[in-house]
Amino acid sequence: MEKLVLVGVDSGATKTEAVGMDTTSQVCVFTTEGPSNPSVVGIEKSSAVIARAVEKVLTSLGYEKPTPHIVAVGAAGVVNKSYADVLRKRLSVLSGVPADRVVVFEDELAAHASVFLSSDGIVGVLGTGSCVYGEFAGHSVRVGGWGHLLGDEGSGYRLGLKSLREVLECLDGLKECSSLAILIARSMGFSSASDVLSYVYYSENPKTAVASLATMVMKAYRDGDNTAARIVESEIDEFVKQVAAVIRKIGVSSPKVGFTGSVYMENRELLRHLLKKKLEELLGIDIEIFEQKVRASCGAIIAGLKLKNDSTMLARALNTIEKCCLC
Amino acid sequence: MEKLVLVGVDSGATKTEAVGMDTTSQVCVFTTEGPSNPSVVGIEKSSAVIARAVEKVLTSLGYEKPTPHIVAVGAAGVVNKSYADVLRKRLSVLSGVPADRVVVFEDELAAHASVFLSSDGIVGVLGTGSCVYGEFAGHSVRVGGWGHLLGDEGSGYRLGLKSLREVLECLDGLKECSSLAILIARSMGFSSASDVLSYVYYSENPKTAVASLATMVMKAYRDGDNTAARIVESEIDEFVKQVAAVIRKIGVSSPKVGFTGSVYMENRELLRHLLKKKLEELLGIDIEIFEQKVRASCGAIIAGLKLKNDSTMLARALNTIEKCCLC
Repeated sequence: MEKLVLVGVDSGATKTEAVGMDTTSQVCVFTTEGPSNPSVVGIEKSSAVIARAVEKVLTSLGYEKPTPHIVAVGAAGVVNKSYADVLRKRLSVLSGVPADRVVVFEDELAAHASVFLSSDGIVGVLGTGSCVYGEFAGHSVRVGGWGHLLGDEGSGYRLGLKSLREVLECLDGLKECSSLAILIARSMGFSSASDVLSYVYYSENPKTAVASLATMVMKAYRDGDNTAARIVESEIDEFVKQVAAVIRKIGVSSPKVGFTGSVYMENRELLRHLLKKKLEELLGIDIEIFEQKVRASCGAIIAGLKLKNDSTMLARALNTIEKCCLC
Repeated sequence: MEKLVLVGVDSGATKTEAVGMDTTSQVCVFTTEGPSNPSVVGIEKSSAVIARAVEKVLTSLGYEKPTPHIVAVGAAGVVNKSYADVLRKRLSVLSGVPADRVVVFEDELAAHASVFLSSDGIVGVLGTGSCVYGEFAGHSVRVGGWGHLLGDEGSGYRLGLKSLREVLECLDGLKECSSLAILIARSMGFSSASDVLSYVYYSENPKTAVASLATMVMKAYRDGDNTAARIVESEIDEFVKQVAAVIRKIGVSSPKVGFTGSVYMENRELLRHLLKKKLEELLGIDIEIFEQKVRASCGAIIAGLKLKNDSTMLARALNTIEKCCLC
């Protein structure tokens, strides 16, 4: 049987995870790099970071020349096919992998596969951004994922943004300072609105600067802070509407729903309960919640092979993934 | 009496207006250039556009070498003093005007002077962005002006953003399509969420791309559209809270309030009435509304001379401004 080398990449706004996989020896090599979300760092930097990660995993697998059968990249912030194509071609040039072996797609496809492998289901991503994506009987549905300017309900960015507005409204005297506003202003050293604006607008990457505050908001929520609870619950309400919209569009009676993303993973117990409760209230049915089963970079390989419609290679990949990609 | 040549610039996200003024011959020369808001186009392009406008008005006044006593620049998106200083120095290099004759400050100071000249009062700016700024007895207060990521209530950007969310919620099946969503989707040729995302995120300037939709929202509001009314009135409610906060902080019993900015100026009758009504309801007092008296670029000269504390030059400038800068 031909030796099969596969590379998967999960390209995010905070970090990039890559896996190199040899299905004959059933070995996986993982590495991480910095941010490579193309809508945040730009196509040029994104492709350079991803190419470096690809080279690293191939070298670790013992391959000097880049000969993978697929380099599958799930990238946040890929809005349409032509944009994905620019990234794909640039990545081919930088990595030396032939362009027809590089596949670039939205990261929610990799997230979906990381929960459901090649089966049907609906995944909600709560990371720096957010999105809901479902597959059923060969159809796919996406709702939300509108990016930081237009949407990203429930995401780390939105939680951070709303907490910064609390701080600004406090510092500008528009309303009484909430305990959350005081906590954030103290932790970040904000003593005027101008400090907050400098923090966001002069940051090299405003999106991640804002999203980095989500950890504090979630901690305050766990500690019983009322303002944090109001922010988190209203964001989760909006997000749950998007999950419900996908369930309705797919039209299954007992939907499988899973969640991933950094905000979800870091607050799994709390958010699983909250999401399940709100979703069941909204839809009036029982919902079974699934968890991420394999790493997102391995999900990218599954998604990439599904897009290439290569069921033979997919079967071999799944066999290896179940052995060496478990979370 | 020494010949006095003054230059004022109103640097915005949509356009740049410059005035060159000779107080001896009492002549004013105006010109406009494209966008130069430094937070939108970057310091380098901003200073290049402003330097070109400065050169044009000086040449038109008959000055080959740049010899103005002041180049006063009111710029949107100047968050703090160090940022203003970088722009000031770069502008000095590009224009050849000595750095100590260049003054850079937030555009709301120019807006304030364009309504109240050198007197006290409170100005609310509703343009691409928004802000409230007041002066009273040597004190100044600013509320809002948090930029497109964190605030800008009532601005063209926020009206455009909310209308785009209407379109996305409609296209994603999250709720019934409002007449405003249908109107905007048709006018812009949006048939999927991906079209909307491409329009915003692949635009060279997402802020102005979003803000450009405000005209459609305001027209729909004037035509009696319910969704447009809900968007505009909720945004104006938020903005009015900021105006009220400035009034309370300044602590005057019969405040003078004026409004400027492209969204206000293009919908003056409607917004004057709405702002006055909501402000009087919120505060329970009568509010006298003032209008912009002189062009914003001339307001920049007044604001610049006030910052330089040059009352002699200010008196001469005001004399000329009242003759050749009226709106």
